[in-house]
Amino acid sequence: MGGTKILAGIIDADGNVLEKVQIASPTTSADALLAGVDQVVTELLSVEIAAIGIGIPASIDQRSGVVLSSVNLPLQGLHFRQRMSKRFELPVGIDNDANVAVIGEWKAGAGRGTSDLVMLTLGTGVGGGLILNGKPYRGSVGAGAELGHMVIHRDGLPCYGNCSGHGHLEAYASGHAAALSAREHLGPDMDSRKLVERGASGDDRALGLLYRIGDCLGSALGSLVNIFNPELMIIGGGFAAAGEFILAPARERMIAESLDGLADLTRVVMAELGSDAGMIGAGFVAFEALDTAATP
Amino acid sequence: MGGTKILAGIIDADGNVLEKVQIASPTTSADALLAGVDQVVTELLSVEIAAIGIGIPASIDQRSGVVLSSVNLPLQGLHFRQRMSKRFELPVGIDNDANVAVIGEWKAGAGRGTSDLVMLTLGTGVGGGLILNGKPYRGSVGAGAELGHMVIHRDGLPCYGNCSGHGHLEAYASGHAAALSAREHLGPDMDSRKLVERGASGDDRALGLLYRIGDCLGSALGSLVNIFNPELMIIGGGFAAAGEFILAPARERMIAESLDGLADLTRVVMAELGSDAGMIGAGFVAFEALDTAATP
Repeated sequence: MGGTKILAGIIDADGNVLEKVQIASPTTSADALLAGVDQVVTELLSVEIAAIGIGIPASIDQRSGVVLSSVNLPLQGLHFRQRMSKRFELPVGIDNDANVAVIGEWKAGAGRGTSDLVMLTLGTGVGGGLILNGKPYRGSVGAGAELGHMVIHRDGLPCYGNCSGHGHLEAYASGHAAALSAREHLGPDMDSRKLVERGASGDDRALGLLYRIGDCLGSALGSLVNIFNPELMIIGGGFAAAGEFILAPARERMIAESLDGLADLTRVVMAELGSDAGMIGAGFVAFEALDTAATP
Repeated sequence: MGGTKILAGIIDADGNVLEKVQIASPTTSADALLAGVDQVVTELLSVEIAAIGIGIPASIDQRSGVVLSSVNLPLQGLHFRQRMSKRFELPVGIDNDANVAVIGEWKAGAGRGTSDLVMLTLGTGVGGGLILNGKPYRGSVGAGAELGHMVIHRDGLPCYGNCSGHGHLEAYASGHAAALSAREHLGPDMDSRKLVERGASGDDRALGLLYRIGDCLGSALGSLVNIFNPELMIIGGGFAAAGEFILAPARERMIAESLDGLADLTRVVMAELGSDAGMIGAGFVAFEALDTAATP
């Protein structure tokens, strides 16, 4: 589930997508949104399904299944897991949208076969996901891996939305940050997609801005290498379309900030599943819920 | 094992210290150092021991038991685990000094009963340790949790020793950073201990410097809350003697940088085991090695 669309599918145990439905997100109220979710799930119930998994752009208390905060959807305070499991009488797992994306890439995409990986999703904001010791890491109540809110520049740019922090990665390397920077330096009609297009056409000023964004991203990658010593770092999300324009300087800076030799142990790659990653990962969260339900 | 002393003990399964030996670290050569280690282990062999656990100030490749890099001890490149296990014909576990400290605090100190905790050790440098999903997190090859090397201020102060990075936590909130700052602002005879004493006696300039250090520490704590959503954050190490002079501003900044409500879920406390934490944790690493050895 996202702020603009709900993408749903039938996912098998290998992460294959057997069927897919998409609707615009009804965001006027919690009731409208829940009606939308019910509609897509009901459509997919034409075949027998074992469990439901849902990724939402929100912090979740995994103990209770309550949505702690959700910026783009009217879900805050909802006993969402319980509500869905009562409605459909099936095991239900819910997770943060960045977590389901990393689970999708881990099980069926760029992270197959690894056990310690970090994913950064460069969308409007910057999301994060962690697979550690061979399993998703969600924090003590399930609200962890907000990697976009690492401080990379104390007292730097103010963060966005409901975050009151300063100098967070999200304020430097998100699609929104890219758009702001492009509008400031290249003109009021710019957005992050146009910035990448201008870079691809060889515009030096656009390339300079992208370099700077990649360099900031690299500061965070360096921190993440030192913190996690991961096998793999996956960069996904819409703004990852900037590709090597941001990844080349990011790798360079990552190496400069990493302890001796550590950066050599970490590969940095692009995500493979695109916008399906979250849906596929949500499928694996459903399988997890099924396992949990089967455990007495 | 540290740069100045080797502290060794007999540790039971509950983390009780049954006997303790200490010698100055012979740092002139790898041979001299190994002879010193052999000496303390041999002394403790008067009772029957089941396994040996050792914490060292180094990055370790846990796959091979080789020391990747060690700044303060001549251990680099050594097959240390294998060497010790051959010499004493016992299961041997080795780990980073910050990791054994967090394991000690987790099993027998301030972290008892928690399953997601982050520890920062403010010594000469800043060490880190992670307990995640109820077990120590060591990274893909065992070189993780270098939390002192998170970037908190891009292009800021140069880091120390063999780290070529800039703006790392260690350059702002370590004992060494405190001493440098105290010498710059309060006079050439200052060190981090004297800075804390001056603060305790009410000296405004000293309190200002400690506030600033705590504020920088808090930037990292905010990042760690957002990354890990931990139940507990433990602050240990010699410079943690600065206590509330640094913890009060650190908590304040941590809250400012944390996502809505997340900081409320994390307690920040002082370490309990002092300089015994690493030795006790090394004991638990020995028990881990015993379990591994018992698994065919």
